[in-house]
Amino acid sequence: MIKIGILGYGNLGRGVESAVVQNPDTELAAVFTRRDPESLKINSKTAKVLNVSDIENWKDKIDVLIICGGSATDLPVQTPKYAEMFNVVDSFDTHAKIPEHFENVDKAAKKGNKVGIISVGWDPGMFSLNRMYANAILPEGNDYTFWGRGVSQGHSDAIRRIEGVADAKQYTVPVETALEAVKACKNPELSTREKHTRECYVVLKEGADSKKVEAEIKNMPNYFADYDTTVHFISMDELKQNHSKIPHGGFVFRCGKTGLNKENNHIIEYNLKLDSNPEFTSSVLVAYARAAYKMSKEGQTGCKTVFDVAPAYLSPKSGEELRKTML
Amino acid sequence: MIKIGILGYGNLGRGVESAVVQNPDTELAAVFTRRDPESLKINSKTAKVLNVSDIENWKDKIDVLIICGGSATDLPVQTPKYAEMFNVVDSFDTHAKIPEHFENVDKAAKKGNKVGIISVGWDPGMFSLNRMYANAILPEGNDYTFWGRGVSQGHSDAIRRIEGVADAKQYTVPVETALEAVKACKNPELSTREKHTRECYVVLKEGADSKKVEAEIKNMPNYFADYDTTVHFISMDELKQNHSKIPHGGFVFRCGKTGLNKENNHIIEYNLKLDSNPEFTSSVLVAYARAAYKMSKEGQTGCKTVFDVAPAYLSPKSGEELRKTML
Repeated sequence: MIKIGILGYGNLGRGVESAVVQNPDTELAAVFTRRDPESLKINSKTAKVLNVSDIENWKDKIDVLIICGGSATDLPVQTPKYAEMFNVVDSFDTHAKIPEHFENVDKAAKKGNKVGIISVGWDPGMFSLNRMYANAILPEGNDYTFWGRGVSQGHSDAIRRIEGVADAKQYTVPVETALEAVKACKNPELSTREKHTRECYVVLKEGADSKKVEAEIKNMPNYFADYDTTVHFISMDELKQNHSKIPHGGFVFRCGKTGLNKENNHIIEYNLKLDSNPEFTSSVLVAYARAAYKMSKEGQTGCKTVFDVAPAYLSPKSGEELRKTML
Repeated sequence: MIKIGILGYGNLGRGVESAVVQNPDTELAAVFTRRDPESLKINSKTAKVLNVSDIENWKDKIDVLIICGGSATDLPVQTPKYAEMFNVVDSFDTHAKIPEHFENVDKAAKKGNKVGIISVGWDPGMFSLNRMYANAILPEGNDYTFWGRGVSQGHSDAIRRIEGVADAKQYTVPVETALEAVKACKNPELSTREKHTRECYVVLKEGADSKKVEAEIKNMPNYFADYDTTVHFISMDELKQNHSKIPHGGFVFRCGKTGLNKENNHIIEYNLKLDSNPEFTSSVLVAYARAAYKMSKEGQTGCKTVFDVAPAYLSPKSGEELRKTML
């Protein structure tokens, strides 16, 4: 059994806890929290709940620590710190800062003779993998990534910060005609506005001016100004009833050409439709925790990304079983 | 530059030749044939054409030999034989015999300190990879693979063997309603007949009995009897004009559940639409030739499948570039 530790018990941490139950070769050993452990109710009957200050005592009792913090401030500190003591996996998703994060985790993991796998999930993660495989196979072509239909936490938060807004959910939605043009191998050039629309469901505070809120959302730079945005004002009840889930997904395409005269078109498409973004991400994290465990057992050390992990490491099956049943 | 050799110059070999041109870090060194080399016109201006009997003299002049023979009788002999002398890649696709082929190639490659990557292409190959990744991520769920719309060489050949048939092309076509049910996460149980239909375009010899030919096709066991099959009789001109390409493709789905109460559904879909089946397969072969080269440089030996090859090996980009541009 691979003993898993979870650091941080939010949506992602809870997702890891439930994914561990679905994987017969993993078990949850402990959940570490910055809160008072007494205040935390977890679903597992057997795992311990501890304050993060106790984590060093668990060095030999945990095979892989899955770090479930946020990318903005938690992971840049936590992953290098704990990569020296544990094999770790994180879902660091600030694309521009991945090279720096990689270096920091690599140094720490090598110092502690551990494996650290970073930026695991679906984007970065499975989407990155599919971009990379498709580019290696079809060197001449165009890449397209669409996100949605799904909830963007960042955009929902941005709306909530507007004066007069009680709560909000924002869905990112791929533009159907753009998707169709890509699937038809038309290799379109698409502006930001042509790729995605933004749908906002907003609950106003009493007395707030809906016209003003709507204008403020639609003109918000970076978040909404470059998109066709629709704003729906709804009641808190409706928000809770119809918009409490965190679905997401998206599409990765590569349209490439082969042949001596580039006469043949090929489209590689990967797409995800996810009822729960955090639970899917957690499921990917647990598969890569298995990989970290196996790679560490083999004596590998340092920082890895999904590009560096041979697929077989993710599976509980042996190479022989995989060749027999999945090849 | 990675020096590539091609053994066998059919559709696949020609595809490898043209893929090598698209990959800036590969060059074609030689094509080996069982025919008289004088009789073979290749497209490359610089590569040598040689009889396969000369191949041993090229041991030090080729980095990877891509073996482009057939799975029935060529590859079971050729790949183990040449894996002792060269890093090799093949597209062995007889699923049931992969374990045996793996053992034979593994023994030979280890003896020669070479890397042999077998069963490379899209199925087995990219489809296998996607099945494996998706199963590792979503341990509870159902797998679905659909093939087509595309030309099945085996089924076309089976029709051509019928008395009175001058030529024929057979398309395997996924059943649209079955695809839709899978995409809608209905987890249908599908019989063979419910998954694919077969479309046949047949040119008759003069005086042949079309009713008899049609009945013979539709009742052919294994090939057609279990499917809804349509037969279109056309002229040789029409066959040449409209059915001379070799398109193919298909879909791999995994529909899985997560959550403490399995309340969330997720669908992972990978699909390919290929204008030229052999050229796409060849493009995958060349990417894995790069992997074989890099793995061999690192001192790895033995037989590998797509499950054993870390994705980064397929790319001409460095780890640093990949993290910066594709993660």
